[in-house]
Amino acid sequence: MSDPVQFYFDFSSPYAYFAALRIDEVVGRFGREVQWKPTLLGVIMKTTGNTPLATQPVKSDYCTRDWERLARFMDAPYTLPNPFPIGTQAAARAFYWLDDRDATGARLFAKTAFATYFGEGRDISTPETVADIAGGLGVDRDELLTALAGDEIKQRLKDEVAAAMQAGVCGSPYFIVDGEPFWGSDRLWMIKRWLKSGGW
Amino acid sequence: MSDPVQFYFDFSSPYAYFAALRIDEVVGRFGREVQWKPTLLGVIMKTTGNTPLATQPVKSDYCTRDWERLARFMDAPYTLPNPFPIGTQAAARAFYWLDDRDATGARLFAKTAFATYFGEGRDISTPETVADIAGGLGVDRDELLTALAGDEIKQRLKDEVAAAMQAGVCGSPYFIVDGEPFWGSDRLWMIKRWLKSGGW
Repeated sequence: MSDPVQFYFDFSSPYAYFAALRIDEVVGRFGREVQWKPTLLGVIMKTTGNTPLATQPVKSDYCTRDWERLARFMDAPYTLPNPFPIGTQAAARAFYWLDDRDATGARLFAKTAFATYFGEGRDISTPETVADIAGGLGVDRDELLTALAGDEIKQRLKDEVAAAMQAGVCGSPYFIVDGEPFWGSDRLWMIKRWLKSGGW
Repeated sequence: MSDPVQFYFDFSSPYAYFAALRIDEVVGRFGREVQWKPTLLGVIMKTTGNTPLATQPVKSDYCTRDWERLARFMDAPYTLPNPFPIGTQAAARAFYWLDDRDATGARLFAKTAFATYFGEGRDISTPETVADIAGGLGVDRDELLTALAGDEIKQRLKDEVAAAMQAGVCGSPYFIVDGEPFWGSDRLWMIKRWLKSGGW
């Protein structure tokens, strides 16, 4: 059995949202698994020297239009959230805390968090909202809130972000397939080709 | 007859090179024409606050790999040129000078300049090289060199770059189809869909 495809993303990244809608199906066709790995784009950008799309003149206007068009072409629910972008520490920490207990549940949480933020346009930045989302999926809300307030899960996320940067992750979504990096929701066709042909 | 699709590019942009290999064919299928419009990414980046990919740590390593992979997947000739990136004023000025005289010849020049720089990896930054390329296509080398040294063509390129920025161009390649902007070589599928369905 080959290693799972690594899927790095920030919960506040629209392109990651669009990729998240399709990556499991695309990779599953080749009998492979996907490992979802939320990360923090703000921390990564300090290294890459990049800035959030939303703060870049001209580019942000273009991307706002591109996201709406992409949603239309993909027939995907989409609302540009307000506020946008947001800090996604709470969502990412909740994911890893869940992932250690129930990997399937963690993935369902991630999909629901994305759907809440980009599908419904609702802010998911606070621990309370994140706990509401997880609670709706049967997770013990108070236990999760206690965990989110603790140092252990904060350190865990720091370690995960550091590991992502060590692996070369420089944007969101970012995929690593058997050591080969792919960046962007528009690289799914290349991932398919790679899985099919081994790179040729 | 609808307006031609506008294709903005910098001769030093690898993603523009890949798009240039396909855009005429993609658009032609829908009975539409493409208007090629070289521009200067360095000038545009001063407005968008972006920096060349080649100077961004992590991102440049990724892109170098992505270009090689894209060439392989597209079965396209490709060599990462040295030096890279380069100033492309001479090539862009030559294009517009030719375009005023012979639009078909100008496009052939653009394709040959791209093939020289990214196919063979040869520097095309100097007026002399640009004149060699045009000369090989039957253009009067000395007449072109004289034009490239004059103020008129310099002003012409300045005006074209200003017009591109006015149109919202924030990267390379950048396309405008009936007022709708598309950015990136990986947006050709969206352009096809737009031409087919009018945006739906």
